[in-house]
Amino acid sequence: MDRPLPAPGGFPIVGIVGGGQLARMCAGPAVELGITLSVLAESTQAAAAFAIPSAPVGAADDLEAVRAFARDCDVVTFDHEQVPQDVLAALVAEGVTVHPSPEALVHAQDKLVMRNRLSQMGIPCPAWAQVDDVAALRAFGEAHGWPVVLKTPRGGYDGKGVRVVRTAEDAADWFAHGEPLLAEESVDFVRELAVLVTRSPSGQASVWPIVHTVQTDGICTSVVAPAADLDEELAGELAATGLRIAGELGVTGVMAVEVFELAAGDGAAYVVNELAMRPHNSGHWTQDGSVTSQFEQHLRAVLDLPLGAVTPRSPWTVMTNVLGGDPERHGQLYPTYKHLMARDPALRIHLYGKSVRPGRKIGHVNTYGTDLAEVTARGRHAADYLQGVIDE
Amino acid sequence: MDRPLPAPGGFPIVGIVGGGQLARMCAGPAVELGITLSVLAESTQAAAAFAIPSAPVGAADDLEAVRAFARDCDVVTFDHEQVPQDVLAALVAEGVTVHPSPEALVHAQDKLVMRNRLSQMGIPCPAWAQVDDVAALRAFGEAHGWPVVLKTPRGGYDGKGVRVVRTAEDAADWFAHGEPLLAEESVDFVRELAVLVTRSPSGQASVWPIVHTVQTDGICTSVVAPAADLDEELAGELAATGLRIAGELGVTGVMAVEVFELAAGDGAAYVVNELAMRPHNSGHWTQDGSVTSQFEQHLRAVLDLPLGAVTPRSPWTVMTNVLGGDPERHGQLYPTYKHLMARDPALRIHLYGKSVRPGRKIGHVNTYGTDLAEVTARGRHAADYLQGVIDE
Repeated sequence: MDRPLPAPGGFPIVGIVGGGQLARMCAGPAVELGITLSVLAESTQAAAAFAIPSAPVGAADDLEAVRAFARDCDVVTFDHEQVPQDVLAALVAEGVTVHPSPEALVHAQDKLVMRNRLSQMGIPCPAWAQVDDVAALRAFGEAHGWPVVLKTPRGGYDGKGVRVVRTAEDAADWFAHGEPLLAEESVDFVRELAVLVTRSPSGQASVWPIVHTVQTDGICTSVVAPAADLDEELAGELAATGLRIAGELGVTGVMAVEVFELAAGDGAAYVVNELAMRPHNSGHWTQDGSVTSQFEQHLRAVLDLPLGAVTPRSPWTVMTNVLGGDPERHGQLYPTYKHLMARDPALRIHLYGKSVRPGRKIGHVNTYGTDLAEVTARGRHAADYLQGVIDE
Repeated sequence: MDRPLPAPGGFPIVGIVGGGQLARMCAGPAVELGITLSVLAESTQAAAAFAIPSAPVGAADDLEAVRAFARDCDVVTFDHEQVPQDVLAALVAEGVTVHPSPEALVHAQDKLVMRNRLSQMGIPCPAWAQVDDVAALRAFGEAHGWPVVLKTPRGGYDGKGVRVVRTAEDAADWFAHGEPLLAEESVDFVRELAVLVTRSPSGQASVWPIVHTVQTDGICTSVVAPAADLDEELAGELAATGLRIAGELGVTGVMAVEVFELAAGDGAAYVVNELAMRPHNSGHWTQDGSVTSQFEQHLRAVLDLPLGAVTPRSPWTVMTNVLGGDPERHGQLYPTYKHLMARDPALRIHLYGKSVRPGRKIGHVNTYGTDLAEVTARGRHAADYLQGVIDE
């Protein structure tokens, strides 16, 4: 079905640009709330296209495709931030309700815009500068020390948007594109945290407990909710910061603020790393660990419905990402997860309908309980087994 | 999309005959497990057709429609029990995997078959008899007292399958159809309970805590999980009885055993009222109150996957049915539920995508917590407000 069919009773249609797993995981909550979804999917094989009846195929940067898609929707929101500003501006000019607005979303699309704005707001950031050439990068590195974290403000080159450079000359190829880059000091952090907030157009807002996003080789491998042993004052400050960013930027929907926690006594207790304006990997734990999941909360927010309770349902919930293993040996997930269901009947499995590719996020598992070590170990085992890292 | 599209990774397709709310509520769990659903829906406007991409239209008693539908599915299961035995037999003869099997399902289709079988098993039933004419009914009434509960073994006449008769002559019109009827003594019960069990083809089984199904004018209006102040020994006996029925009848999938609890000292502590072989209204509380919901459990069972944990997530969970009010005045549910979301952020709303008709089950709300009176009141308020019984 290419066009969404609204349910009787005055229910709206929410359009999601992008058919990835974030759109897909909105399907269950939307069904229960009686809300009709429509996704503008990359292909008929997109993760969300398996789950949502209305999934027309079109590209997020194709103005005509997005415009035609939006015509059937009461509100348009996003699975990812890669929708060009001129496409968004055209929608808004035509009277389409878009959440988050282009003015808010640009802070998750352009890291230089984000750094400028957060610095103006006095929110702790790593030392940073816009660098237009090798000489500017060298000056930054001499002032703040090497290595320097170099980022493309939007998208990336060669599939990469971040690199760590030890000399200015290492970045010569990126400067050859003629675009300004963002240089940031390399932060010596204790751990990575995330603040997940939701804000509705009428200004209601909620914030889940601060979580610890465990990274391995630059990939988020698990999330611990709440972050263990987090200083209470810092937790409160982070929640307030998330809400403040959402309010001042006019964010609507779910936003993740990724944060580096710094060692005590270093001045600021944290710096903000990134913003994402959509349901986020750091909030997948809410599907099984919170009264209201981030996917339901995002739908409620973009429809300006009252937000749901964000109370945790268990002392500890751990989300462990399932990354793809070797597709030849571990491409068949179905027989694999049978074994896991037998081993751990309380394991909560969430798969994205994606084919297995090495390192690709193909699902996650949630575990919860009163003993963090046990909850963590159960999730780790399940993810490793699905990935083929272990075989029993 | 009329044909289901399986996700990569060896995942099966589960076909559900019937597109009502029970099929619909399987949608969310199926998405998360990576399982593709297909429903044989009564129309494009069926509850499940709004929620599941593959929803071909066809009647459950149309052999050719069911046969064509089953061809795309790895297993066929049901949203309701109204699939004729000859249709089921034809599927099985063609090698289609059907859960529950026709041999098990007949006990939920034909109340005389059910009573015969349960009595043979020694399971407490009300006094009952097959009555073929007015004289036989009169004899039953004289032996067991009036009124007598008279039931059509399958389906019903004039939309009704049960009537309470005070004299044999009251049933003359039903006997005019020439079919045998089931007479049962009118049981003076304390309350109605339900035992919700799940059994998989390989014989694994689970049972949720026994629940109290609160009835008002013969309609289930709410379910309290677990049933308050239930004698522990009786709870154990009921759970064992549910598991025994599932095992001896060869049930696969979810089965509800509806039970009358009798006053202490009456001999048997309970009698079995009805069997339903599918997810059931008495199990809707599991969506928010159990580690594994009945909809997920049913899918796991019919696929012969290991069953999930049935541990409650809260001391009390109450499911309150939302019945349709006056469609002219209360047909628009969307604006109504906005108010409820603001009033009770922890309210869990589940709607079926159905238009409002007086008395029609159009949704339910789940509430949970530590105080049963408060949990009950929240659910009752929300359902009354959605129905238009109260206006604030």
